[in-house]
Amino acid sequence: MDQTSPTPERTHESVTFAQGLALDCGRSLRSLTVAYRSVGTLNATRSNAILICHALTGDQYVADTNPMTGKPGWWERVVGPGLPIDTDKFFVVCTNVLGGCMGTTGPSSPHDERAPEPWGTNFPAVTINDMVRAQKRFITHLGVEKLFAVIGGSMGGMQALSWAALYPESVFAAVPIAAAAYHSAQNIAFHEIGRQAIAADPLFHDGRYWSHGVTPERGLAVARMTAHITYVSEAALTRKFGRKLQDVANLSALGDRFEVESYLQYQGSSFVRRFDANSYLTITRAMDLFDLAAPHNGVLSSAFSGTRTRFLLVSFSSDWLFPTAQSRSLARALNHVAANVSFVEVESDKGHDAFLLDEPDFHRILRGFLAGCAEHAGLA
Amino acid sequence: MDQTSPTPERTHESVTFAQGLALDCGRSLRSLTVAYRSVGTLNATRSNAILICHALTGDQYVADTNPMTGKPGWWERVVGPGLPIDTDKFFVVCTNVLGGCMGTTGPSSPHDERAPEPWGTNFPAVTINDMVRAQKRFITHLGVEKLFAVIGGSMGGMQALSWAALYPESVFAAVPIAAAAYHSAQNIAFHEIGRQAIAADPLFHDGRYWSHGVTPERGLAVARMTAHITYVSEAALTRKFGRKLQDVANLSALGDRFEVESYLQYQGSSFVRRFDANSYLTITRAMDLFDLAAPHNGVLSSAFSGTRTRFLLVSFSSDWLFPTAQSRSLARALNHVAANVSFVEVESDKGHDAFLLDEPDFHRILRGFLAGCAEHAGLA
Repeated sequence: MDQTSPTPERTHESVTFAQGLALDCGRSLRSLTVAYRSVGTLNATRSNAILICHALTGDQYVADTNPMTGKPGWWERVVGPGLPIDTDKFFVVCTNVLGGCMGTTGPSSPHDERAPEPWGTNFPAVTINDMVRAQKRFITHLGVEKLFAVIGGSMGGMQALSWAALYPESVFAAVPIAAAAYHSAQNIAFHEIGRQAIAADPLFHDGRYWSHGVTPERGLAVARMTAHITYVSEAALTRKFGRKLQDVANLSALGDRFEVESYLQYQGSSFVRRFDANSYLTITRAMDLFDLAAPHNGVLSSAFSGTRTRFLLVSFSSDWLFPTAQSRSLARALNHVAANVSFVEVESDKGHDAFLLDEPDFHRILRGFLAGCAEHAGLA
Repeated sequence: MDQTSPTPERTHESVTFAQGLALDCGRSLRSLTVAYRSVGTLNATRSNAILICHALTGDQYVADTNPMTGKPGWWERVVGPGLPIDTDKFFVVCTNVLGGCMGTTGPSSPHDERAPEPWGTNFPAVTINDMVRAQKRFITHLGVEKLFAVIGGSMGGMQALSWAALYPESVFAAVPIAAAAYHSAQNIAFHEIGRQAIAADPLFHDGRYWSHGVTPERGLAVARMTAHITYVSEAALTRKFGRKLQDVANLSALGDRFEVESYLQYQGSSFVRRFDANSYLTITRAMDLFDLAAPHNGVLSSAFSGTRTRFLLVSFSSDWLFPTAQSRSLARALNHVAANVSFVEVESDKGHDAFLLDEPDFHRILRGFLAGCAEHAGLA
């Protein structure tokens, strides 16, 4: 029933499942396509698979060149032969999230009933749990019953937590990095600015921009810029750009710029060429809805009762979007149910994005944790 | 030469100076109008005048009803008979800033050479120092040689600092609240998001929206929302709105909302009815340009060499936009030149906006400082 094929028009490797997917919102998708990349070799017992979960604007191109941008994989310093997530030992797979725009079913996919017209804003609201259910379908398709590890930063960390909560028997180790058990009011507010900026762009056309052959680039760029500021620390912004100021003479209100401004504009404009606005709306909403404790009357530890998964929680000291306190309360909740949990706050002045950057301490910790787990799992 | 009159079409009380104003950017305004409000009585020696400087989106209606919004003055809990800034003792005046949109010369004022067409985006770039020079002109017009105090929060605090640096002999006491000696890279970045959102609004028409009879409301609302999030602490956002979440069923990407989102939208939409977009661009740029140490080869203390002004610096513990560290380095610089300086960090979880809110500790400190200064100034 299932078809494995590169989707022709997109060139992303993907699997399409004829069986639909029931969503948290009560609606169902009639079929499900999951786009993915893998690297390394699955061993005979299928016990060495690591699932990497990407962040909001990430994708499945974790360790090889992204065909849309021509840029290296987003975690090339972490995933590869001899690297902290060692592809000589592990079979590493990453899927584009449900609701995304890199080949997995999302708002730009054909509508269930009105194909070839895309879903657009009619795409159902999805949750982090829904994303994880789609990944589970894919992992099962690979013949993997139990993942050696689920690893992700930011929204990827939310997915790692959701995996451990939904499928405790399928996760030997979980590594939520720069993550939290719920999205804070401030985080929701920053997302809302982005969504409003997109909705305010006249090229958005109430989400039907695809039918006009346009994209709401300016709104999407403002959304990206807003998010970008929250991803870096004040120290990192200052170090990169400082206040190299042009002469105040001839300065106009929208003309000449501080360096930080041109950088932000560049970030915004490169992003709009690769990202679908309706996906941005869908995925930010999924993050905002994330609240692990909610189905357990607000008792976070209950989400992990009886868990045998080994956890490594990592936070970064200058991350003000997902501050250390959030990881610490996760660690407390896990301790409360006697889980096997390590928690490390990495000293860094790079902010939330530190998990993507050159952070030797973090990489050492990750490598050590995985090596220890591999030993316990009989993989070493 | 100078005319004191309520500007007929606006009803704001104002003074128009026939003499122009030379600006930091090298350009000059041919004439200058300063809109203001005052309360209390100037004493015979003209020694009891307090100038209050407003913040980015504030105005001169500090202690009486704002005619545009019908709302109470923005500092009604602080300025009035028997209040911390006691109008039974002091003559309190507040002017709309240069570049503003409440009666003082700004982008919506008639162009020097093309009246009645407004300046729009042709309005020169102004600086905080330029704003202070316009205020000085006005204060001199009142016959006041030396202000008893200059007081302001946020951008108003920048003006208080600029007053003390430009006109040390004209300022007996200065109270910069929740302020800084320069605008940080992060602050500039947040402003840039707002400016880009305004520029991205098709109704902006490259700043000529007035000629189309429209206003770029959506862009301005996104700008305001962005700023608003930076003004409140995470704790304040959470306390006010928490995560009262609607059922995920029927949730659409842009439809139903967390409470924090509807609040932000309300903040954005009420703002656009009273604020001019080109003023927003001009004033945010002035803040971004602020850097007290720059003309002194980066040595902040040199800005205050030999000062005899008494300073009270106030910061709020949860203010992440103008954090305590910024006020502390100001205090250090002032100590370095043996200035008379008090520095207080007020414990508050209300964020940057705390200076506008009910903060009894802050009010007590302000009252005490002014009383002490009044005694030294022979006003008690």
